[in-house]
Amino acid sequence: MGGAVVRKKYLELLSLSAARKRFLEACADLGVLPGREEEVDVREALGRVASREVRARVPSPPVPCAAMDGFAVRSADTFEAKPSAPALLGMGKFLPVDTGNPIPSPFDAVVPVEETGEAPGGIEVRRAVAPGHHVRATGEDFPEGATVVPVGAIFGPEAVAACLATGNPRVWVKRKPVILFVPTGSELVPPDTSLQEGKVYETNSIIFRAYVERWGGKVEVHTIVPDGPGLLERALRDALEADHDLICICAGSSKGRGDHTPELVSRMGKLLFHGVAMAPGKPTLFGIVGKKPVLGLPGYPVALWVVLMQLLRPLFEEYYGMSLERGERTVGTLTRRVHSTLGTREFVRVRLEGRDGDLAVIPFPGGSSRLSTLLFADGILEVPEEVEFIPKGQRIEVERIPRLW
Amino acid sequence: MGGAVVRKKYLELLSLSAARKRFLEACADLGVLPGREEEVDVREALGRVASREVRARVPSPPVPCAAMDGFAVRSADTFEAKPSAPALLGMGKFLPVDTGNPIPSPFDAVVPVEETGEAPGGIEVRRAVAPGHHVRATGEDFPEGATVVPVGAIFGPEAVAACLATGNPRVWVKRKPVILFVPTGSELVPPDTSLQEGKVYETNSIIFRAYVERWGGKVEVHTIVPDGPGLLERALRDALEADHDLICICAGSSKGRGDHTPELVSRMGKLLFHGVAMAPGKPTLFGIVGKKPVLGLPGYPVALWVVLMQLLRPLFEEYYGMSLERGERTVGTLTRRVHSTLGTREFVRVRLEGRDGDLAVIPFPGGSSRLSTLLFADGILEVPEEVEFIPKGQRIEVERIPRLW
Repeated sequence: MGGAVVRKKYLELLSLSAARKRFLEACADLGVLPGREEEVDVREALGRVASREVRARVPSPPVPCAAMDGFAVRSADTFEAKPSAPALLGMGKFLPVDTGNPIPSPFDAVVPVEETGEAPGGIEVRRAVAPGHHVRATGEDFPEGATVVPVGAIFGPEAVAACLATGNPRVWVKRKPVILFVPTGSELVPPDTSLQEGKVYETNSIIFRAYVERWGGKVEVHTIVPDGPGLLERALRDALEADHDLICICAGSSKGRGDHTPELVSRMGKLLFHGVAMAPGKPTLFGIVGKKPVLGLPGYPVALWVVLMQLLRPLFEEYYGMSLERGERTVGTLTRRVHSTLGTREFVRVRLEGRDGDLAVIPFPGGSSRLSTLLFADGILEVPEEVEFIPKGQRIEVERIPRLW
Repeated sequence: MGGAVVRKKYLELLSLSAARKRFLEACADLGVLPGREEEVDVREALGRVASREVRARVPSPPVPCAAMDGFAVRSADTFEAKPSAPALLGMGKFLPVDTGNPIPSPFDAVVPVEETGEAPGGIEVRRAVAPGHHVRATGEDFPEGATVVPVGAIFGPEAVAACLATGNPRVWVKRKPVILFVPTGSELVPPDTSLQEGKVYETNSIIFRAYVERWGGKVEVHTIVPDGPGLLERALRDALEADHDLICICAGSSKGRGDHTPELVSRMGKLLFHGVAMAPGKPTLFGIVGKKPVLGLPGYPVALWVVLMQLLRPLFEEYYGMSLERGERTVGTLTRRVHSTLGTREFVRVRLEGRDGDLAVIPFPGGSSRLSTLLFADGILEVPEEVEFIPKGQRIEVERIPRLW
């Protein structure tokens, strides 16, 4: 039983801020940041980030067109027209137009129908109009060469429509980083199989994929890698052949017998950290294998979520050069004393409840193994490393968990 | 030319609030609201709204399991153990376990590896443990029968994972309302064709689809219906055969020669309103044809956007029973006088710019034909019906345009 007794240890516990820095710097060194670009059909660009400025190749509108329903006329033909002395326009001197219709030369103005009347052989115009009256000039919306979408902007549907109107059917966007998620553990089975005694559904990939996709990434989920000699190594070697920006191995970074990841990363590459001074989320590791960043994620869903928020979200913020959605910060009164390990940054899930005009901050009992504490939480109370406890009744700031779906 | 001269008129201009009320009431009368439900694979439920409560069919965890890496033991075997007098456990009296492993009977506690040592033929335990120590009890996360997702909640990834862990592979969600979008106009061509002189790309469907999908709807886009006798009628008759919750006909609700929609809706069903006292967005109509609600949308993209925000968004809010994302309200100083038509609710696109510690509210010149005024706007200044102008320098509240992508 000796093998069971000799347990592995964390290399060291790195502070969260140092771990984040090391992770992001390595991603920059390895070329994951600042990321690549790709050209796509603009209709596929909704929600993507422009990597190059889009300028109007053609003006919009491309030709003068009617801004109202009425009659296209030559403004000169309406010279000095007034209700008491309307201008009479015979056939060929006017053209009925609806909003959006091109105004062909020599017409240069539109008279609204209200300012006209029927006349023998044509129409009468009761008001003189200036050139360009009720006409949308060429390029009025977007002149040729004008910036339609600046670098770094997200394509909304209005931008997609504007690109099409200005001769930009294809645009350059930041490529979505591709992250491989490798679930490990002999106890795991895919959700579409029946559940045998002692097995659990692999659902971390669902949580991981949902957040990463929401932040603009692409996730490939590996088949479940059972515990067993050489199995994770083979999966990792195969993964290194493919074109992923980041490889995430879920669970196996703790100190248990099945936890081969630290040893594997050390042997195949370089382990940069193993163990982060945060809770939940301590069993997080990071290393470089074959010039690929490899992140070892904790298996408890709440711990996985903390790593998503604390390491993956900043990666996407760096990648796209923008802040991602965070929850509103709010202040309330703590309903019970909260203890925290000195030197550890703790993320306490709390419920928020309006009580007598104040906001009660109610910490969830129970650890990171409880998905329910995350599912039913309204906010997160972050306890800094130097704080050992927060007394009951303390006024504290919490961050609401943003609704991303 | 008589036909060109006799122009159609709006039935009446209805106030926006009255139009919205009439629209929503008709949708309720016709059974579009409160909407139907459907059963889906829970992995497809991300972002959907629960129409029935989800309860734990099986507890989670389903059996007791290790909450730490260590040794499963019978707590009774550690009775009075202490560092100076450890309990010695021989083979069969302990089981190495990793976090998450089931704890088989008769074991009832887990001793962390740090509190154990090697001993001849087994291990020594240096501390007495109580029953349940470091064991996740059956149902600790979700007891059998507990509410996992309440009615009306949105499924986030944590909820999806929780449903799978509690024996709920399929769940009931609100069905997405299906909206048919019918683009009309001989000047329109699909974006994937080449653009001839006098033609424009049909892009309103892109804007319409993006917002409606974001709010939880499903959009089917009809082929473009050119102007011409009977063409729109045929399209509408075909559409009535299908199972849409709402039919939207884009453009053709104005007063131009090609604008057949009001007459068509009156003839085939009942026109409930034609013309709303708002700008942009006046040429909006609504009626009932063959027990289906039919909405006539303006063709200018900014006007279309206003109708999306003022009529479609409230429909989805009613449908799902929740508020949809709105922009933050903020206060700034108007940089130039804004005029508005008395009796009309006006939606002025504004840019917001920090200036000397204040927020400048800069109205865009130019009308609703300019997509750029929407694309580059930061916020909307809503001018109520009874206001004819707002003076330069006035402190005013504006609503930021929320970033949905």
